[in-house]
Amino acid sequence: MRKFVDDPKQFVPQMLKGIALANPGALRYVPEYNLIMRADAPSGGKVSIIQGSGSGHEPAHVMLVGKGMLDAACPGDVFSAPPVDYVYETTRLLRSERGVLHIVNNYTGDRLAFDMAREMAEADGIRVETLIVDDDVAVNNSTHTVGRRGVAGNFFVIKAVGAAAESGSGIEELVELGKRVNAATRTMGVALSSCTPPAKGKPLFEIGEDEMEVGIGIHGEPGRRRAARGTASEIVSTILDAVVGDLPFQRGDRAALMVNGLGGTPVSELYLLYGIAHQQLAGRGIGVARSYVGEYCTSLEMAGASITVARVDDELMRLLLAPAEIPYRVF
Amino acid sequence: MRKFVDDPKQFVPQMLKGIALANPGALRYVPEYNLIMRADAPSGGKVSIIQGSGSGHEPAHVMLVGKGMLDAACPGDVFSAPPVDYVYETTRLLRSERGVLHIVNNYTGDRLAFDMAREMAEADGIRVETLIVDDDVAVNNSTHTVGRRGVAGNFFVIKAVGAAAESGSGIEELVELGKRVNAATRTMGVALSSCTPPAKGKPLFEIGEDEMEVGIGIHGEPGRRRAARGTASEIVSTILDAVVGDLPFQRGDRAALMVNGLGGTPVSELYLLYGIAHQQLAGRGIGVARSYVGEYCTSLEMAGASITVARVDDELMRLLLAPAEIPYRVF
Repeated sequence: MRKFVDDPKQFVPQMLKGIALANPGALRYVPEYNLIMRADAPSGGKVSIIQGSGSGHEPAHVMLVGKGMLDAACPGDVFSAPPVDYVYETTRLLRSERGVLHIVNNYTGDRLAFDMAREMAEADGIRVETLIVDDDVAVNNSTHTVGRRGVAGNFFVIKAVGAAAESGSGIEELVELGKRVNAATRTMGVALSSCTPPAKGKPLFEIGEDEMEVGIGIHGEPGRRRAARGTASEIVSTILDAVVGDLPFQRGDRAALMVNGLGGTPVSELYLLYGIAHQQLAGRGIGVARSYVGEYCTSLEMAGASITVARVDDELMRLLLAPAEIPYRVF
Repeated sequence: MRKFVDDPKQFVPQMLKGIALANPGALRYVPEYNLIMRADAPSGGKVSIIQGSGSGHEPAHVMLVGKGMLDAACPGDVFSAPPVDYVYETTRLLRSERGVLHIVNNYTGDRLAFDMAREMAEADGIRVETLIVDDDVAVNNSTHTVGRRGVAGNFFVIKAVGAAAESGSGIEELVELGKRVNAATRTMGVALSSCTPPAKGKPLFEIGEDEMEVGIGIHGEPGRRRAARGTASEIVSTILDAVVGDLPFQRGDRAALMVNGLGGTPVSELYLLYGIAHQQLAGRGIGVARSYVGEYCTSLEMAGASITVARVDDELMRLLLAPAEIPYRVF
C-alpha cells in the first residue's frame, strides 16, 4: 500500500486534526462527531450550511469549510456515510435562527443519515432544509444510488449557496438557488486506475494498464463501460458528448468548466485536458466564462479525471467570484 | 501508462495551451519558446522575474506565473532543462529597465542554460541577476547536481521575491532577499512510487509496494537510502530530523511549514502528514506561523511527499501573505 498512514482506523481523525492545526483560529475540530466547523459559527444572522459524506473525496467536503462556503462538515469514514448522530449533533451545534441547510450528495447512505438527522433536529425545533446534488450523468441508479450520483459539481452548488448565505439570503432562497445551480451542472468522469481505502489495504477493483472505466463513480462504482484507453482528445470528446448532450445548450451560452482530478492524476495532465475541453466546447458554441482545474472531488489516489460543465448567468458568475476563505488554498 | 495524453511529444505544449486558455487576459502563451508570461509584462517599473526548469513539476513553475509571483516561465520538456535560446528569448521578451531576475533551481542543466542565456542577454545590454535555490538537504551532489538540489522550497523564494518586486524593490534588494529566504528554507522528500515520463512510457525506477526512497529527487534521482516504508509518524520524524537538524532552530522560532505532494498522493494524506509534522515541530519548540498543504513541486504522478520548513520573521510573513494572482488557484 503506497500510502502515508499510521493506524488505518485513525486515518480520517488524523486528517481532520491536520486540517484544524493548519487553520488555527479559523476552524474548530470536534473529535466526538468527526466534525470540522468554522470557529465563528453559528452566526445567528446567517443560515448555517452543512455537508457530510464519506471521506476519501478531499478537498470535498472538510476542506471546503470556511467563510463563504460550508459552515461545517461531518464526514464519515472513507467511502462511508456519516453516522446519523454525527449529522444530528452537527446540526445542533450549527443551529441558527435562520435555519440549517443540509447539502447532500445523492447517495442512499448519505440521504438516509441526513433524513433521520433532520427529523431529530426538527423535533428539537430546528428549521432544516435539504438540497440534493446529483450532477453525474454517467448512470441513472447505481450500486450506491437511486437516481444520479453527486460528484464534483457539488463544488459549484456549495460555492454559490455559500456566497449567497454570506450576503444574507434566507433558507428558502438558498434552496431555490442551489436547485437551479444543480440543474445547470453536469459531470462525468473516467478512471485510469483503481484506489485503495487505507483500512482495506487492497484496490477496490482491477483495471488494466491501458484500460479506462468510462463514467466511474467516486467510490469506484462501475460507470457506463470498460474500454481501451483512448487519447486525451478522444476521452474529452466522450465526456463532453455525455455532459453537454444531457444539458441542452444553445450556441452563445456561457459555462463554468471544471477539470477535476480524481486524486492520482497530476495537475499537468489536468491542464492538458482543460485545453482540449475548452477548445471542444468552443467548437460546440459554448464559451468558457470561468475555469477550474485541479482537485475538487477525489477518490483517494485514483488516477482519472472528471469534467463538469455548468451553465452560468450573471448572478451565478457573481456568486462564483465572491471571496471565500477555506483550508484548501495555495497561499 | 495510466495517463491522459495525445502525442507524448506534445505533452508540454498542450499543457501550456491549457494554462493559457484557462487564464485569458491574464497570461500569454508563446509557443516558439515554450513560454508562459503575464499578459501585462514587462512593466518598465518593475524587475521581471523568470524561472525555467524541466516540466513535470507542476504547479512549478508555469502555474506560478502571475501578479505577485513570476513574470514568465520557460519550461523545458519533461525533466529536461529549457534550451538556452528559450531562456534567452524569454529574458529579451521580459526585458525591463529595472533588470531581469533569473530564479534557478540548482541543477546542472538548468544552470548551464541560464548562465549562457544570461551572457547572451547581457551582450544585448540587459541587466540580469541570478538567484539559485538549493533547499533539498537530502544529498550534497547528485546525478543531476553539483551541490544541493532545488525543490519545493522554491515556492517560498518565488513568493517572497515576487511580492517584493511588486512593491517596487530593486534587483539587488531582490537577490539579497531571495538568498536570505533560500538560506532559511530546508526540504526533504520521500517517494512511495516511481513515475513515468509520457515520452518514455515506462517508470523511471522500480520500487516495491512497501518500500520508500528517503530523500528522493524530483526527477526520480536516488536519495539517501531505500528502506521499508515506515508509519506516517516515523516518516515525518525522519524528515524533520534531517530538515530541522540542518537549519539550526532555537526554541521559540517561528516557521512556515509546507507539506508538498509529489503528484500521486492525495490531499487527505498530506493533511494527515501536516498534523503530525505540526505537532512534532511543536515538540521541538518550533511554532508554525503559516501552513502550506498541497502540491507545490511534483514529479509527475509520483506517490510521495516532501516537507519544507522555512524560518520566518515579520518581513517574510508579510511577503508570504501578500496577495498574488496565478493560474494555480481553487476559486
